[in-house]
Amino acid sequence: MIFTVQIKVMPLKNLLDPQGKAVMGGLNNLAITGINDVRIGKHIDLTIEASTEAEAKQKADDAAQKLLANAVMENYEIIVSS
Amino acid sequence: MIFTVQIKVMPLKNLLDPQGKAVMGGLNNLAITGINDVRIGKHIDLTIEASTEAEAKQKADDAAQKLLANAVMENYEIIVSS
Repeated sequence: MIFTVQIKVMPLKNLLDPQGKAVMGGLNNLAITGINDVRIGKHIDLTIEASTEAEAKQKADDAAQKLLANAVMENYEIIVSS
Repeated sequence: MIFTVQIKVMPLKNLLDPQGKAVMGGLNNLAITGINDVRIGKHIDLTIEASTEAEAKQKADDAAQKLLANAVMENYEIIVSS
């Protein structure tokens, strides 16, 4: 079976997010007001072939831990859909 | 009211995604198998002050069109939660 797995990788809440800060500045320059905070992370869509949803999630988790997310600076969230 | 708005910016389906291809190579090197496709985009969390959900969504849409997404190469999706 083919599963579509989404992984959302975001910088940890306590850490400064320089990319987000830069976008905040950009929004102010464009006179878009009312935006109090911006945080930028990665969104990864995986197409995984596995026999069960749990197996697909396990593979995604493995990939996230070993390659996609840096646990020192980022946390990640996995959403599996078939 | 404060709304949390998530914007998911992904490369268009028809376009090559070099970052995704690189990650595919990395996953193969790590012997993580069964992953057929990888596409990598951005995930942006905005904290928006607005009086209604529609207004918050409008601001996020404005920000996405003017700054966050490049319509030639990317599409985006907005999810508002209060």
